[in-house]
Amino acid sequence: MHAYRTHTCGALRSTDAGSNVRLSGWVHRKRDHGGLLFIDLRDHYGLTQLVLHPETPGFETVERLRAESVIKIDGEVVLREGSTVNANLPTGEVEVRVLSVDVLSEAAELPLPVFGEPEYPEEIRLKNRFLDLRRETLHKNIVLRSKVIHSIRQRMVEQGFLEYQTPILTASSPEGARDFLVPSRMHPGKFYALPQAPQQFKQLLMVSGFDRYFQIAPCFRDEDLRADRSLEFYQLDVEMSFVTQEDVFQAIEPLMHGLFTEFGEGKPVSPIDGVHVFTNDFGQTMEHKGFERLTFAQSMKWYGSDKPDLRNPIKMQDVSDHFRDGGFGLFAKILGADEKNAVWAIPAPTGGSRAFCDRMNSWAQGEGQPGLGYIFWSDDQQSWGGPIAKNLGQEPTEALMSSLGLGKGDAAFFTAGLPSVFAKFAGLARTRVGTELKLVDEDQFKFCWIVDFPMFEWSEEEKKVDFSHNPFSMPQGGMEALETQDPLTIRAYQYDIVCNGYELCSGAIRNHKAEIMLKAFEIAGYDASVVEEQFGGMLNAFRYGAPPHGGLAPGIDRIVMLLAGEQAIREVIAFPLNQQGQDLLMSAPAEVEERQLKELSIRTQLPIKV
Amino acid sequence: MHAYRTHTCGALRSTDAGSNVRLSGWVHRKRDHGGLLFIDLRDHYGLTQLVLHPETPGFETVERLRAESVIKIDGEVVLREGSTVNANLPTGEVEVRVLSVDVLSEAAELPLPVFGEPEYPEEIRLKNRFLDLRRETLHKNIVLRSKVIHSIRQRMVEQGFLEYQTPILTASSPEGARDFLVPSRMHPGKFYALPQAPQQFKQLLMVSGFDRYFQIAPCFRDEDLRADRSLEFYQLDVEMSFVTQEDVFQAIEPLMHGLFTEFGEGKPVSPIDGVHVFTNDFGQTMEHKGFERLTFAQSMKWYGSDKPDLRNPIKMQDVSDHFRDGGFGLFAKILGADEKNAVWAIPAPTGGSRAFCDRMNSWAQGEGQPGLGYIFWSDDQQSWGGPIAKNLGQEPTEALMSSLGLGKGDAAFFTAGLPSVFAKFAGLARTRVGTELKLVDEDQFKFCWIVDFPMFEWSEEEKKVDFSHNPFSMPQGGMEALETQDPLTIRAYQYDIVCNGYELCSGAIRNHKAEIMLKAFEIAGYDASVVEEQFGGMLNAFRYGAPPHGGLAPGIDRIVMLLAGEQAIREVIAFPLNQQGQDLLMSAPAEVEERQLKELSIRTQLPIKV
Repeated sequence: MHAYRTHTCGALRSTDAGSNVRLSGWVHRKRDHGGLLFIDLRDHYGLTQLVLHPETPGFETVERLRAESVIKIDGEVVLREGSTVNANLPTGEVEVRVLSVDVLSEAAELPLPVFGEPEYPEEIRLKNRFLDLRRETLHKNIVLRSKVIHSIRQRMVEQGFLEYQTPILTASSPEGARDFLVPSRMHPGKFYALPQAPQQFKQLLMVSGFDRYFQIAPCFRDEDLRADRSLEFYQLDVEMSFVTQEDVFQAIEPLMHGLFTEFGEGKPVSPIDGVHVFTNDFGQTMEHKGFERLTFAQSMKWYGSDKPDLRNPIKMQDVSDHFRDGGFGLFAKILGADEKNAVWAIPAPTGGSRAFCDRMNSWAQGEGQPGLGYIFWSDDQQSWGGPIAKNLGQEPTEALMSSLGLGKGDAAFFTAGLPSVFAKFAGLARTRVGTELKLVDEDQFKFCWIVDFPMFEWSEEEKKVDFSHNPFSMPQGGMEALETQDPLTIRAYQYDIVCNGYELCSGAIRNHKAEIMLKAFEIAGYDASVVEEQFGGMLNAFRYGAPPHGGLAPGIDRIVMLLAGEQAIREVIAFPLNQQGQDLLMSAPAEVEERQLKELSIRTQLPIKV
Repeated sequence: MHAYRTHTCGALRSTDAGSNVRLSGWVHRKRDHGGLLFIDLRDHYGLTQLVLHPETPGFETVERLRAESVIKIDGEVVLREGSTVNANLPTGEVEVRVLSVDVLSEAAELPLPVFGEPEYPEEIRLKNRFLDLRRETLHKNIVLRSKVIHSIRQRMVEQGFLEYQTPILTASSPEGARDFLVPSRMHPGKFYALPQAPQQFKQLLMVSGFDRYFQIAPCFRDEDLRADRSLEFYQLDVEMSFVTQEDVFQAIEPLMHGLFTEFGEGKPVSPIDGVHVFTNDFGQTMEHKGFERLTFAQSMKWYGSDKPDLRNPIKMQDVSDHFRDGGFGLFAKILGADEKNAVWAIPAPTGGSRAFCDRMNSWAQGEGQPGLGYIFWSDDQQSWGGPIAKNLGQEPTEALMSSLGLGKGDAAFFTAGLPSVFAKFAGLARTRVGTELKLVDEDQFKFCWIVDFPMFEWSEEEKKVDFSHNPFSMPQGGMEALETQDPLTIRAYQYDIVCNGYELCSGAIRNHKAEIMLKAFEIAGYDASVVEEQFGGMLNAFRYGAPPHGGLAPGIDRIVMLLAGEQAIREVIAFPLNQQGQDLLMSAPAEVEERQLKELSIRTQLPIKV
């Protein structure tokens, strides 16, 4: 017989009745029933009920053992009787009548209970993470994370991708977030940096002739923390050679669809075989399969966000024409003041009650807005009501509201002004309306691509054209576009994938030509020498035969959070840092010995306290 | 048609003849044959031969293009004729008659040629790694690495292991090698450390109730570099709960056997179904399946090393009894001087020539030894010869040599003195004899376990008992052994796996009981308070219910090196640091801005140059 177990605690079934078994595990719960001792014995795989009689050798030992002690037992599997069968437990048809007990490790008094998972302060949970991780929910999350990552790897390899490791001790990168630095002992005064992402290395891999790269890559950003951000996080880093944007989509959509279907517990996932009609910002249309696509401009216009939650069915509309020179003076005046101004409607089906409209108005004021205009038709009214309707007039109101597909029992809210200023608030209002009216079917995963990001934008601060997002994306139209178009009309081959309102990643077809890159930087006001100095390594590589290439990098932690239904990244990481960037279990960061600093040719210089 | 390719450069076959195709890739080689231009077009997947006629549009462009430029061509697949078929190339039955050419990226003059892979200085190779990686051998190595790692993951998951990530920003560890430190911005004066290995975290995972853990884990050691060592390396980190040493072996043997069989290109791999008889240091024997097992003491005695290359059939023997009080005065005197002294024989079948024995003797002197005694029987002699044989006498020599299974045409070498002093040299001599006499069949992978490492050893330096290897291993016999045995006779549940003379990893059944750990440290002269201070995190965790657990951690880079037949770790890493720890491509480590140091509350303090 094995030294510790013949079965795991999740293995025994009714067919095992009568066999002699050995089990090891943690004392999850102990109950005393009329002299009998019932123990739920727990391991990674499940729970098994043990029964000890007062005459069982070791009974007294076990009786005084604390929960979470580790024991090994020999015993006989017996069928449970009728009402004692536990249908919620895979092992619930049997119990083990204990014949002997060994205590493998006795638990001291627990700083954090495992059974029942009562709420506990995060500090105690993190300091005793080895206990916290025994709790069912967290244990499940970490197992889920492992399975999700393995499934991603499988799916990538099946699609012909290979995983390559890129360096973790690497160079400080001048763009993006703040780097973590690592002093070099061998090169006094110099520092490595931890990668914010393997962006340059994955592009170098493509230039090196590898074709379909992926990596579950650890990334590091020394940024202030939020619930959904960690100093150290993982992304599914992907890059492909000789591809268009379309190829990237076709590689990633089956991955995401398959993954969310596999782990989504039956929730519907956006199909990848549906046909959509996509219209770009210049009015050209194309049919395509896969996830829905929206241009950045459309997403802002319809959803007030570049990461729209499409589970919310509300689509905003520009209804300026209904208000231009109309009876509602305020909006007419706003529209007249600047031709860029607009009035947007947020349709609110089933929202037709004064109480709801007033509540939305108060919420808007709480958000720092002057208010939120509305029109509604409550059940006790004969027609559309509210101040806007009154001023606009019966017929124009009717025309407006029916253009929104609304009628009795519905409402609509309105925002007016410069869309680039109010869009974000309008998006929040849309979300609020959807949630309050329970229009959002939360139990699904709705994906979309946001495409055609503008390459450049006008920087009011610096009064110049600057890059909107990623300077390394290929401009649509290439060199010709850069040389002939108004920069603010140039779109980039850049895309985000969004699920349920969360941006899972952004990606791009890269600019693989040194001369186009220099031109793009020139437009944004950067001298060639600056570009050469800061990005010389990659730019230089592009001069020796670079393939067209592109990719993206979905966040792993975010994907697992979505699948686990968690709001905090720390719930899907085994040993996370706390919100102050501390490992409370291992005590990091910590002071180090003077000798160590000396070896690294650095010294600390603490800020002066005032 | 796809924007860049209908096929990869490794795809076309004779059955494709007649089709119109589009290919993209690098100009690997260009040849001019009677006005025709032949191009080997290369991508990740292979090579395809292109043919351009002088009238092909773009002919002149391509003619002046440098190798390694990236082009896209449209053309027609045609069968090659008889003698022009290239049987060495999967696409060798066809070529593509080019109809049009697009240059996707023009290469400047190359600092490093790709075709033909001529030897080049490492500095140039690393500085232009994106070109170096295009070379066939290195490209293959990196692909091999990727496939090996994926296969490891598959095999581990199939065995019920799950992969978990442990932190990279973690605490400085007081044991082992030198840590890399990462200054914390949020906590001035404090530092994170990069993990030398996730040792404590994997043990904490077991204490947290996870059962079978693995991770392809990046590890970091700030040590001076050698050809087979990098600052940053990967290990297959493994840990299991409720296991004995036997369970660990049974999990790892199929992994190693399967992996080396899969990627070993037909070379035989130690079988895992063979039966061995193992005798421990106390004379107890047991039968077992799997890889051969040797105790540490046996390995030193038979092979002069704890990482024996078992491809070499030579097994050394203690032949002291043949020399005690015998005719060969030198050895008799050495044996008489100290009862710990011994004479070891290194049998050298087929080594029976004066020339060979003299060569070995000279080699030994070159190694700083006074010489290497020998007995040999060359073809032109009637019997055993050499000074030792002469002094020892005919009959004792015959008895000695036949006890070694040697006869005409053979030789044996001898070392005498204190085995702990000469064992290493004897091991080198064994290797030398095996190699020189071509007794070693190199084309195979021979695995063995080294087991039963001593828990403690006598430190001559400190004149006290100290840990031999890993203080966290479970001593065989547990607390009772610690309390009752002479510490120097206690063995640990600690094991190495060795392949072809390389230590792939060490591992152990861990000491999971705080009280046994404190006792072991006490024997090695460490006060409980020191242990609590330095290893408090883990020790504390053991107090709340810890399962018996154990594992190991084979080096991934080492495994890939063995499979690729490479001697330098830099040949199996895509972007390695050079031997001075520099990334010559991305320029790391580098100076950083004063502002960055200030944010981190550190300043550099360069060593004063003299």
